[in-house]
Amino acid sequence: MLGTPDSYLSRLRERAPRLNIYVAGERVEDPASHPVIRPSVQVISRTYELALQERYRGILTARGLRGDEVNRLVHVEQSVEDLLARAEAQRILNSAIGNCNYRCTGHDGINALFAVTYEVDQSRGTDYHRRFLAWLEAVQAQDLAVETAMTDVKGNRSLRPSEAVKSNPWSYVHVVERRDDGIVVRGAKMHITGAAIADEILVVPTRALRPEEGDFAVAFAVRPDFKGVYFVASWHPMDVMKRMASELGVEIDYPLPFGHRNNYLIIFDDVFIPRERVFMDGEAEFAGRLVEYFVAHHRAAGGPCKAGFADVILGASALLADANGVLKASYVQDRLVEIARHAEVMYATGLAAMVKGWRHPSGAYIPDARLANVAKLEAVEHLKEAVAVAADLAGGIAVNAPSARDLAIPGLGQKVAEAVRANEAYTAEDRLRAARLVQLWTAGPHLVGLVQGGGPPATQWAYLKADLSSRLDDLMRRAAELAGVRRGGAA
Amino acid sequence: MLGTPDSYLSRLRERAPRLNIYVAGERVEDPASHPVIRPSVQVISRTYELALQERYRGILTARGLRGDEVNRLVHVEQSVEDLLARAEAQRILNSAIGNCNYRCTGHDGINALFAVTYEVDQSRGTDYHRRFLAWLEAVQAQDLAVETAMTDVKGNRSLRPSEAVKSNPWSYVHVVERRDDGIVVRGAKMHITGAAIADEILVVPTRALRPEEGDFAVAFAVRPDFKGVYFVASWHPMDVMKRMASELGVEIDYPLPFGHRNNYLIIFDDVFIPRERVFMDGEAEFAGRLVEYFVAHHRAAGGPCKAGFADVILGASALLADANGVLKASYVQDRLVEIARHAEVMYATGLAAMVKGWRHPSGAYIPDARLANVAKLEAVEHLKEAVAVAADLAGGIAVNAPSARDLAIPGLGQKVAEAVRANEAYTAEDRLRAARLVQLWTAGPHLVGLVQGGGPPATQWAYLKADLSSRLDDLMRRAAELAGVRRGGAA
Amino acid sequence: MLGTPDSYLSRLRERAPRLNIYVAGERVEDPASHPVIRPSVQVISRTYELALQERYRGILTARGLRGDEVNRLVHVEQSVEDLLARAEAQRILNSAIGNCNYRCTGHDGINALFAVTYEVDQSRGTDYHRRFLAWLEAVQAQDLAVETAMTDVKGNRSLRPSEAVKSNPWSYVHVVERRDDGIVVRGAKMHITGAAIADEILVVPTRALRPEEGDFAVAFAVRPDFKGVYFVASWHPMDVMKRMASELGVEIDYPLPFGHRNNYLIIFDDVFIPRERVFMDGEAEFAGRLVEYFVAHHRAAGGPCKAGFADVILGASALLADANGVLKASYVQDRLVEIARHAEVMYATGLAAMVKGWRHPSGAYIPDARLANVAKLEAVEHLKEAVAVAADLAGGIAVNAPSARDLAIPGLGQKVAEAVRANEAYTAEDRLRAARLVQLWTAGPHLVGLVQGGGPPATQWAYLKADLSSRLDDLMRRAAELAGVRRGGAA
Amino acid sequence: MLGTPDSYLSRLRERAPRLNIYVAGERVEDPASHPVIRPSVQVISRTYELALQERYRGILTARGLRGDEVNRLVHVEQSVEDLLARAEAQRILNSAIGNCNYRCTGHDGINALFAVTYEVDQSRGTDYHRRFLAWLEAVQAQDLAVETAMTDVKGNRSLRPSEAVKSNPWSYVHVVERRDDGIVVRGAKMHITGAAIADEILVVPTRALRPEEGDFAVAFAVRPDFKGVYFVASWHPMDVMKRMASELGVEIDYPLPFGHRNNYLIIFDDVFIPRERVFMDGEAEFAGRLVEYFVAHHRAAGGPCKAGFADVILGASALLADANGVLKASYVQDRLVEIARHAEVMYATGLAAMVKGWRHPSGAYIPDARLANVAKLEAVEHLKEAVAVAADLAGGIAVNAPSARDLAIPGLGQKVAEAVRANEAYTAEDRLRAARLVQLWTAGPHLVGLVQGGGPPATQWAYLKADLSSRLDDLMRRAAELAGVRRGGAA
Repeated sequence: MLGTPDSYLSRLRERAPRLNIYVAGERVEDPASHPVIRPSVQVISRTYELALQERYRGILTARGLRGDEVNRLVHVEQSVEDLLARAEAQRILNSAIGNCNYRCTGHDGINALFAVTYEVDQSRGTDYHRRFLAWLEAVQAQDLAVETAMTDVKGNRSLRPSEAVKSNPWSYVHVVERRDDGIVVRGAKMHITGAAIADEILVVPTRALRPEEGDFAVAFAVRPDFKGVYFVASWHPMDVMKRMASELGVEIDYPLPFGHRNNYLIIFDDVFIPRERVFMDGEAEFAGRLVEYFVAHHRAAGGPCKAGFADVILGASALLADANGVLKASYVQDRLVEIARHAEVMYATGLAAMVKGWRHPSGAYIPDARLANVAKLEAVEHLKEAVAVAADLAGGIAVNAPSARDLAIPGLGQKVAEAVRANEAYTAEDRLRAARLVQLWTAGPHLVGLVQGGGPPATQWAYLKADLSSRLDDLMRRAAELAGVRRGGAA
Repeated sequence: MLGTPDSYLSRLRERAPRLNIYVAGERVEDPASHPVIRPSVQVISRTYELALQERYRGILTARGLRGDEVNRLVHVEQSVEDLLARAEAQRILNSAIGNCNYRCTGHDGINALFAVTYEVDQSRGTDYHRRFLAWLEAVQAQDLAVETAMTDVKGNRSLRPSEAVKSNPWSYVHVVERRDDGIVVRGAKMHITGAAIADEILVVPTRALRPEEGDFAVAFAVRPDFKGVYFVASWHPMDVMKRMASELGVEIDYPLPFGHRNNYLIIFDDVFIPRERVFMDGEAEFAGRLVEYFVAHHRAAGGPCKAGFADVILGASALLADANGVLKASYVQDRLVEIARHAEVMYATGLAAMVKGWRHPSGAYIPDARLANVAKLEAVEHLKEAVAVAADLAGGIAVNAPSARDLAIPGLGQKVAEAVRANEAYTAEDRLRAARLVQLWTAGPHLVGLVQGGGPPATQWAYLKADLSSRLDDLMRRAAELAGVRRGGAA
Repeated sequence: MLGTPDSYLSRLRERAPRLNIYVAGERVEDPASHPVIRPSVQVISRTYELALQERYRGILTARGLRGDEVNRLVHVEQSVEDLLARAEAQRILNSAIGNCNYRCTGHDGINALFAVTYEVDQSRGTDYHRRFLAWLEAVQAQDLAVETAMTDVKGNRSLRPSEAVKSNPWSYVHVVERRDDGIVVRGAKMHITGAAIADEILVVPTRALRPEEGDFAVAFAVRPDFKGVYFVASWHPMDVMKRMASELGVEIDYPLPFGHRNNYLIIFDDVFIPRERVFMDGEAEFAGRLVEYFVAHHRAAGGPCKAGFADVILGASALLADANGVLKASYVQDRLVEIARHAEVMYATGLAAMVKGWRHPSGAYIPDARLANVAKLEAVEHLKEAVAVAADLAGGIAVNAPSARDLAIPGLGQKVAEAVRANEAYTAEDRLRAARLVQLWTAGPHLVGLVQGGGPPATQWAYLKADLSSRLDDLMRRAAELAGVRRGGAA
Repeated sequence: MLGTPDSYLSRLRERAPRLNIYVAGERVEDPASHPVIRPSVQVISRTYELALQERYRGILTARGLRGDEVNRLVHVEQSVEDLLARAEAQRILNSAIGNCNYRCTGHDGINALFAVTYEVDQSRGTDYHRRFLAWLEAVQAQDLAVETAMTDVKGNRSLRPSEAVKSNPWSYVHVVERRDDGIVVRGAKMHITGAAIADEILVVPTRALRPEEGDFAVAFAVRPDFKGVYFVASWHPMDVMKRMASELGVEIDYPLPFGHRNNYLIIFDDVFIPRERVFMDGEAEFAGRLVEYFVAHHRAAGGPCKAGFADVILGASALLADANGVLKASYVQDRLVEIARHAEVMYATGLAAMVKGWRHPSGAYIPDARLANVAKLEAVEHLKEAVAVAADLAGGIAVNAPSARDLAIPGLGQKVAEAVRANEAYTAEDRLRAARLVQLWTAGPHLVGLVQGGGPPATQWAYLKADLSSRLDDLMRRAAELAGVRRGGAA
């Protein structure tokens, strides 16, 4: 069934008293009205609204486990058409919201766990897949907002997890106790987008593990209000801006209803997870597979995700150029075409990873890993260039805009407002709003977020290097044949 | 039915006495044995061989008009799966041959004419589509090698065709006489890959036309041995190398069985075209559409086409690095990954244009024009970079290799051979062969060929600019909503 | 004579009561202690400190008008060696401060006015040069902090200045009254770095003007505390962060003593300028020349300026990588080399513009305009790439760092601190500080600041296009000679 | 004294009977009239002509060892002004000739040996410097054409030289016998530009050596006609084109009087070198220094060298665009500006390496190594891009041009000529000539030549990596100070 903003909000409100969320050292009483967190709540609400629109049926929605219509964000993709629809969904959401849609990692975690729990059960006779399906049915039935927490804080990178936890107990989430009715976990995850306001969080390992590292091979679903779960929000200058604009009552200084990306450090301080919510516990050799499936989805979707962002950058750049009074200049028009081109390349590489997706024995479809990794790297390259074009077109006002409060200085404010106007079709306030939107992209956290999200480029590079080494002999042999060389590819 | 190299060669030999082909001012008696043209004949033969391989069934082949298996190179694509298979086919062929497959323009011309003749008939009550189907059935039945001739020599670019032909009769192919049984055409086409050795040439307009330019809105099929058709081969340094290596009996100096790309200037000196071979005559407003459909196919296929080239560049670079004795160096290994990445981006953008292909009323499927244009531009960008990496890895021997004849200089040759060896697993001859293969890509005609083929980048840029102008208002309006700006996108 | 931080600060404090500076709508009482403005005051103080260091003598200092040692930031460059020393000075300052040095525009305005006042006097018999020298001697004697205000707010870009001021009186600074003892000016300048805390502001036209636009051809020196001068500070999220870190007493959240770039909108509300401070009034045909000389200096210096930034980006990226525990990874080491390379290219193009500088009849040396424009475009390109590498290496912590206040949450803070640690040689606090420094570059205002500073790329592009058109015939003629073509370059 | 083309030619003719030069297996009787070698002879002649032009005095010429005017190509640079003049000279020569000037390696070898022989003598009490000065005085007095041979053929790259020569005697040039009156050397050098037609060849080691590798630490001057010296020319397709255009009498097919780059494999088959010509023999620890000084000069000069090439690419692209009839299109004009910009960046980085040159104890000035390495890498990057733009603008005719012989086919030739014309201001022949000039750059050996010349990019990368590792601690320490981090740069 498709959820609604209202049902999501009422769940969030109900949970609020039990949530431990901190922003800059202060506990958050009500996330839905907290100036720093509210925009992300609005993002999730918007994902419900958009899925209810008739024109997006079959794209933002799909047929769920029970055959009824469910939100694609909690759907297990089961065909290439599904994968392609998911790519569309990603672009539509991010283009409409102008921010991360917050639920995409949940989708990828669901799809990865669906496949891996099946594999583990086949190999080990466990019953993770059944448990997972039971959990997923409930999720689909209520259209819960799910997010996945993967990245451990790691501590000393040169140590294996079992060593690292000795000096730093939070470095990797791990099982510290196994009871009849469940497990107790400890550790911390970082860079977890929007986690505090999710309905459910899927916690999964961050890396491939060795057989003896079973305590780290743990996957489970947790509700944010479980005892011992703590969220510490990232505190980026734009968060501060958001909060202060709210305090000062000048929404123009941060006019973005959906905000920028909100991330959390999550501390699991000996959290009890009931057995039915545990989807992996000790099967270390499957941890790597789980990561692989997750990143195949996540990096493939990274293409249309960033294409959606580029759509916003394009529209915002044109809007500000218009407010600046230079939209029709041929230099501006040419640069806008460049942004449009960057958007399509990102979209295209994502689509390609989807169209070459493959059927997993569980019935799930998984994007092609090689193309998914390429898609991520292209997303980095092209979003960076789109941002650079936006910086070129913006004019200094994207970083030098005064506060809207300056427009109200007695005696001076009116003059400031006049000085700030350019194209007379836009008020000073509207020009400032357009500038703040461009500021988000050219001087905000998105570039780093993109580069690091789905794993830093070094990990994609490593994948492609390993992938090539398995193909190089064959390519050399064929080149040798073409040129009549007697040796080649024989390593 | 699938053709064979033998049947193609026997048709070519039969036709040879009537063909007017010139290479550097000399008439070619037998293309199949002429040193400059033979490699291209071998390419076309290879397209027949490969299509017969079981592993490529359904990719290099398809179900034809009569339901039997036909070569995909003469197939009308009728689904997204078809388009995707075509993309695969393109990469497979070019990767295997290490050169243009020569029949790809024929495919694109067939697909464009299939759709446009249908449109013209629907609109004008003509019977071009029936004629075209009759011709195509014969083509499919014999698996004829078809190529398309589109680019007119144009003459003075500042004149419209009707003006241009006054001072330069060859500038645009046009009808000079209409008879009961057919038409007489005059003009010249240039940059026509492999045309002289095709079984059939589809001649189509090069640009959109105005209503009064009906004489230039002419499309037809011609056999290369028709009276009045003259072919003048391009004469590139590599052609000269090919000819001289043959004369001197040192195949090592040009060891490439499939050569580099062979192009022709075709002069139509008042050629009579029988009515049944005429597929457009005067319907000027459809000329632009024909070009659009052709380039949508051609630019979309440009992605996997160049990915196939990049596969060869990658294999060849690794082979030469091995012959040079440096394959294992980490610098080399990292650069090879870069080539691999370039290959996949080109492939991906092409696939995306295919997967977003659309159904034409005739039943034909046509790749998405926006993504096809993006694919072409990415192909330019990434093949250029792949070539640059190859130039980096090659070592000077890619351009400074001596002739293999130097290895036979009495008294000195043995010393030269010793001096030329590096990795002892390769003979001097084999290192030279590997160097010549890399030379083809780093110091040969391919880069320009790629950049210009399917229309120069300026034409893709123009498409994307026009395309954006139709979308910009909407993107601005959405940005304005996001930022709360009251105006935006209202032009 | 060389100034000291103390003398600068005492001048600033003395002036404070008369300064009209607004930050987010509130009047600033004491700039030197205001959290948003203090860092820029510290930057200027640092320029004095550094110039006093013996090792920078002759680079950060020079021989002034009276032969004594003066700060190079108020020096008129009079040889190629001078220009080169200025390039060094720029890199040294920005590398040491990790921010704009705030006084560089003053230097460029001084150098441009020195030359142009000489020209005007030669041509018109005026005495601007003498007036300017008198002002400059005083500046050099006290080592005053000078900045130049060039960019007008412009209003409707499609109007000439004389039209624009009709609907928007602030659009261009212009003379509204001429008296015996001086002039009265009105208008607004924007994007003026650090202007409010300068000792002197040079106000100059923003563009070439037509003969009839004499009222806009006005250049003068103004003190920030002159009656009618108002400063409205830019209000960037990092400013808000700075202010809130100060309010909350957590300097770790904004640990940068020198801050990021501080810019102002300046409103000249009928300001009286005494005659001796007026250096151009009505000589419209010299306005373009003034802009040319200014940007030749400013764009040439942009190379070493951004090289200095890249030095900081490099050090900061390595520091954070070390705190993250990954400094020794070969992927990281390779990327650091890339940043180093970007730094040197920016430096090199700036040096080249200096070394090809030319002697103006006044005795001043001016960098080569062609190379200066190239230097600016390369600075945009390479700083963007350096930033992208920094974003790659940073890890998510560059944007997802929690507030240092989170480390003090009772009961939880210690756990947060442990979770935040990576390389054990760094405390949590130190890792956060390093992350905030990288944040400044990867998610702060610097990229846009760079792109727009010294004029947006469109202006450099326009220069290079005009420049080429004057050389193209000659280049074509030489190509024609080389290839034996009979025509070429005769256009 | 400045030489003349005539004196150079008479020396070459005198030497011809004793020269052992092979082109494609055939011995060359007279280099000055051999179709493949003649263009390079014309290049060297042109370097004499240009140096005699008054306008280049002090740039192409300098004050020599005896105080008289000498060609800068045989000059020891002794000030920054000298180094800058050398950069100018390099751009002037290459821009005028449209090819490698062939004598630049001689200059760099002279400069490196001047410094290193001084160092060796200071350290070892040898008298190499005196010997070298004697040789150099004679060279300057006659303005001899000198080239340097550095790159050994190396054989198996994984072996040290002393091992490599056991299996492959040619792998590294080395001393096989020491006599009272001189030494006997054996080995082979490859990629030696124009060596066969030089007056003198300086032979130097190719790499740093270990103390026990003294036999490989050998530097000397050899005349090409010494007994036992053999030259095998590279045999590139353009060489074949050159030869065949000459055979067929169609100079239009290869209309370039100065050709493309001509390289040689040189075999030293036990060549006796008289003592006075030996400038290093056994001082292994100085071999690396010699390479360093050489490449500092060569890579620094690589910037203006390629800027000169870009000048030609720019002129040629504009010329062909004009012949094609599209010069005025805005797309074309914008691309031409891009080439112009690439030229200036290459020039600028070279100039910077010069201006930061340093004084060697011998009195010689040597460019800054860091900037020289950066200049080389930028040259690779920007010439590649310039070539790509040329490929974009060229149109297919740059690779598909027919032979000029086709214009003379009886009955058909006139039609071909008409078909080939575009802009009527150019004859068909002239359009072909322009196309061939662009072909040289877009489909010729120059790109690889550039990338590999002065050492492949891997060597510059290695330099910059080593260089950074020595600076990184300091940069980190400064970043740590800026951000208040307590650790950083402490390894």
